[in-house]
Amino acid sequence: MKNIVVIGGGTGSYTILKGLKAYTDQCSLTAIVSMMDSGGDTGVLRDEYGVLPPGDIRRCLVALSEETELIKKLFQFRFSKGSLKGKNFGNIFLTALSEIMGSDELAIRETGTILKIKGEVFPVTLDKVDLCAELEDGTIVRGETNIDIPKHNPTVLIKRVFLDPKARAYSDAVKAILKADAIIMGPGDLYTSIIPNFLVSRIPKAICDSKAIKIYICNLMTKYGETHNYSVADHLKTILRYIGGKSIDYMIVNNGKPSVGLLKKYEREKSFPVLYKNEEFYEFGVKKVIEADVMNKRILIRHHPERIAEVILTVIKKIK
Amino acid sequence: MKNIVVIGGGTGSYTILKGLKAYTDQCSLTAIVSMMDSGGDTGVLRDEYGVLPPGDIRRCLVALSEETELIKKLFQFRFSKGSLKGKNFGNIFLTALSEIMGSDELAIRETGTILKIKGEVFPVTLDKVDLCAELEDGTIVRGETNIDIPKHNPTVLIKRVFLDPKARAYSDAVKAILKADAIIMGPGDLYTSIIPNFLVSRIPKAICDSKAIKIYICNLMTKYGETHNYSVADHLKTILRYIGGKSIDYMIVNNGKPSVGLLKKYEREKSFPVLYKNEEFYEFGVKKVIEADVMNKRILIRHHPERIAEVILTVIKKIK
Repeated sequence: MKNIVVIGGGTGSYTILKGLKAYTDQCSLTAIVSMMDSGGDTGVLRDEYGVLPPGDIRRCLVALSEETELIKKLFQFRFSKGSLKGKNFGNIFLTALSEIMGSDELAIRETGTILKIKGEVFPVTLDKVDLCAELEDGTIVRGETNIDIPKHNPTVLIKRVFLDPKARAYSDAVKAILKADAIIMGPGDLYTSIIPNFLVSRIPKAICDSKAIKIYICNLMTKYGETHNYSVADHLKTILRYIGGKSIDYMIVNNGKPSVGLLKKYEREKSFPVLYKNEEFYEFGVKKVIEADVMNKRILIRHHPERIAEVILTVIKKIK
Repeated sequence: MKNIVVIGGGTGSYTILKGLKAYTDQCSLTAIVSMMDSGGDTGVLRDEYGVLPPGDIRRCLVALSEETELIKKLFQFRFSKGSLKGKNFGNIFLTALSEIMGSDELAIRETGTILKIKGEVFPVTLDKVDLCAELEDGTIVRGETNIDIPKHNPTVLIKRVFLDPKARAYSDAVKAILKADAIIMGPGDLYTSIIPNFLVSRIPKAICDSKAIKIYICNLMTKYGETHNYSVADHLKTILRYIGGKSIDYMIVNNGKPSVGLLKKYEREKSFPVLYKNEEFYEFGVKKVIEADVMNKRILIRHHPERIAEVILTVIKKIK
């Protein structure tokens, strides 16, 4: 039984966990989720109730849930009208439970039990902190949602991101990293979903100290205002800058091609395929770059849960 | 195994079901719930989502639930702040499930399964109708909440209540009544919780046709604007007027006394103990009036779940 830790947040982690859930006879799964989301109804609940942002936690819980399809659908359900318009049921569930139990930590664990999850879902921190970005022109942008959906001039690049105030790691997250056999990072919004985890104290050190093999799954598409023009190498370099050292062993890079129609849809958002050139990744400590068609090309360009899980498993099976 | 049907709505049914749940080794429970509530967040959800009013259904489901105390607490939880202020979690749950399943009926059944209820909870009708009252001065009041919390002059008595448009009975509710061994009516707001059930077509006839013994549990306190000055006999006569015939076999009347302090609290709301005089109830077809201290006198004057259930069981045990 291998201990697999998936670090991320948002749709990326949901996809990876959903794919890996088919292999829980071979591996035990732990998701570590960034807690800096401040957008949408998650942001509203965070502000109004002082709870940890529930959205990403909820997605990971649903991904690992062994409950019926109906219950999973319910937890992902968003009201489209009336006074609950825009509110997600699962987020309301987590918020109500936090209010009753007086603890976000207990509410997350209890929801995991209720949803019969295969594995564990840990917030990277229990501290309530803001993600901030310093842009190349010196502007400071505060709040994940303002970086994610840029209110600033999106042509000005992000120089660095940081947390304010500082955040302490959730100790069970650190423990999981230290005893992991494999740590999977990404995919997901680089500065607003993945890196926020590495800004939490003790997390980068735990990753470097862990004997686990470290796999980075690169994003499929660039994001305007966040990773515009970023190549695979740019993604990797940015990740390493925040974790430190030569801490990525394997990279999984997509070589599938989306349709022209789908690409056009993304072009409107100034989002383009992340370019992979045959760069010398080995100087960054990467042992192997795995190229594979891991793309789901239906309505959105996303990783394909089953395909990406298969590729991950080929790496994990090499662990002694 | 005796089939017990509890007809009502609101806190009254919750109390009776909660008490009777201890005897589900001896009896199988069905709650039939009035669907005319239009107040509070239930009214808002009903208006905004076109769902059946969830509040009373939810209370009955929780009363019969075998889930953990935490889950039951969650389903009764009401947000006290923020954009969800005043909203009850269980009502949100039922509404979300109705939206997903496209059917209130299925959503109620599914929630029953999720809450592991011992028994069944049926809406008296699936039709969306308004409760209306004609007052003694000819005024028509529309909407359950406007009768329950009178906007009209509360000294003007209610002449009659009716539904607009007419409602057809939920067939499973009719079936349950017909195969019942005992039918329990009340306690609960006379015109706004109990009688609305009898305004639904086929329900009064089913009650009269059923071979079940019929038990009426009289309210403890009068309600200003609804049952001001009503004695036990007035309650009974009103009930019989809507069911028809001499359809009550047993009456349970409280003889416990609340504290002076508690009575003072109720006096402020112009609410007084329902007076029981030794009237000739037998002319109304009542076989026996059972007097017992079935009162819970702690913070509110309510029926005591365990005590009222014990009294009900003494009657039920006589059924051959």
